Amino acid sequence: MQLADYLKSRAALINDELERLLPHAGAFPPSVHEAMRYAVFAGGKRLRPILVLACAEAVEGEYPAGTTEVACAVECIHNYSLIHDDLPCMDDDRLRRGKPTVWVEYGQAGAVLTGDALLTIAFDLIGRAANRDPAFSDRLLLCSQELAVAAGTFGMIGGQVVDIEYEGREAGKDILHFIHTHKTGALLRASCRLGALVCGADDAALNAVTRYGEHLGLAFQITDDLLNVDGAEEKLGKAVGSDAERGKTTYPALYGVEESREMAVEQVGKAVEYAERLSHPAVLVQLARFVLERDH
Amino acid sequence: MQLADYLKSRAALINDELERLLPHAGAFPPSVHEAMRYAVFAGGKRLRPILVLACAEAVEGEYPAGTTEVACAVECIHNYSLIHDDLPCMDDDRLRRGKPTVWVEYGQAGAVLTGDALLTIAFDLIGRAANRDPAFSDRLLLCSQELAVAAGTFGMIGGQVVDIEYEGREAGKDILHFIHTHKTGALLRASCRLGALVCGADDAALNAVTRYGEHLGLAFQITDDLLNVDGAEEKLGKAVGSDAERGKTTYPALYGVEESREMAVEQVGKAVEYAERLSHPAVLVQLARFVLERDH
Repeated sequence: MQLADYLKSRAALINDELERLLPHAGAFPPSVHEAMRYAVFAGGKRLRPILVLACAEAVEGEYPAGTTEVACAVECIHNYSLIHDDLPCMDDDRLRRGKPTVWVEYGQAGAVLTGDALLTIAFDLIGRAANRDPAFSDRLLLCSQELAVAAGTFGMIGGQVVDIEYEGREAGKDILHFIHTHKTGALLRASCRLGALVCGADDAALNAVTRYGEHLGLAFQITDDLLNVDGAEEKLGKAVGSDAERGKTTYPALYGVEESREMAVEQVGKAVEYAERLSHPAVLVQLARFVLERDH
Repeated sequence: MQLADYLKSRAALINDELERLLPHAGAFPPSVHEAMRYAVFAGGKRLRPILVLACAEAVEGEYPAGTTEVACAVECIHNYSLIHDDLPCMDDDRLRRGKPTVWVEYGQAGAVLTGDALLTIAFDLIGRAANRDPAFSDRLLLCSQELAVAAGTFGMIGGQVVDIEYEGREAGKDILHFIHTHKTGALLRASCRLGALVCGADDAALNAVTRYGEHLGLAFQITDDLLNVDGAEEKLGKAVGSDAERGKTTYPALYGVEESREMAVEQVGKAVEYAERLSHPAVLVQLARFVLERDH
């Protein structure tokens, strides 16, 4: 299958599952349920849940029943983090994917609570993936903990804390690396690991998937920074150059555009190496190479 | 054992466990870990985690290994909710348990992230309770989902959403009931259920514990409202009469002080009835009666 078709079909599947799994917009109290859907259905690429599915497929050839719930849990965590990051006390962003951010649309209290709700429901969704096999519960409990650790202060939250503390201050290469491997890298890495964990993968496969996720995550962040320098505003859905304006440290700012491009290529090469250790690597390989070509 | 001794020893146990389970204050990034500890060790009564332990003991005579992690998870959820509720965009409180609230001490971004961190770590703690028995993982996965649902938009968050929407507006008895059974009731009920779930309780015991938690929760909220009317400020750690000032609907405001007292007594009576269906009810019975006598 062509990668574009794969991504499209998997994104459609995830959207259908999110539609099914999230509370209806009219459920009481409606404001928070409407806001959850406003955020989640604003048009993301579903990269993280697709990675969950693709890594399970790379390990086992197919993903077991219950994987889509786990994948949707990651997407909920990702969306909660965007909602809270956009708050006036954090990044103070009014626009996300070309639409008003949740706090602009639902107020600050609404945005705090909507983010809390999406973070919380992630762990409900993992519970809903259970079947009657205790061995599968065992795997899901590992998934739940994996996600909590990746989203926590030694993962995504830790990255956001440091990112905020360094806004407007000069950050060195170590801090830049910390921020990116934690703020965005931890959840991408966890997405890959969750795909392996739902399959009950052995240590070798889990390790390969983990390294794949780490290198893919770095490649993704570097190309994201590069797009922020020269991407077209309508594609990115936010103001181009906004990182520099806010004094955010980026790869191109610290290493220059050319070296940053080379670093992204190198990370993708390593991701491909690890993908090829798995039984069914084709999609993961194409996905890693695609990171270099993306324009949004 | 006297109830006071029981509560004291269990609170000390929970404090020791929280000390062991939460990240060290110096762990990188230190600001968020320090803030988590600032919030959690501000001197709460540990009612929710004690209910987890006490309900497990009521069902089984003792609580299984791993119950303390589950109990601490509930306490983390409770503390996250206080931190976010205190934010300027929510209840705008500057004082909690006699100390500056987290946002006053660590800034609003710090408070949002510290709350997120405590919510997230709760699900890590449940994972850490796992032993090598898949049947116990099965129970823990149920606990994780129970907690997520109780803390979510059909539980605690839903209660907070409606509470905020009705601030300064007249709320009827149905809305008051909804707010209290959700904002505080859902987590108290879940605490009781978690104690039964870790034991693998049968349906009859789980049902008795559930009803106990519901009636205890209502009794607790009504007496809380009554204390807000006539409690001593230093005992409550917040300004007395602050609910009325903010236009919050309370039981004494809607039903009068006398009828509210009678309602609390009735709820405690029902809680006791359900406790007595369990194998080892003594502590739960004393605990329910204690709600009527508490002064903070």
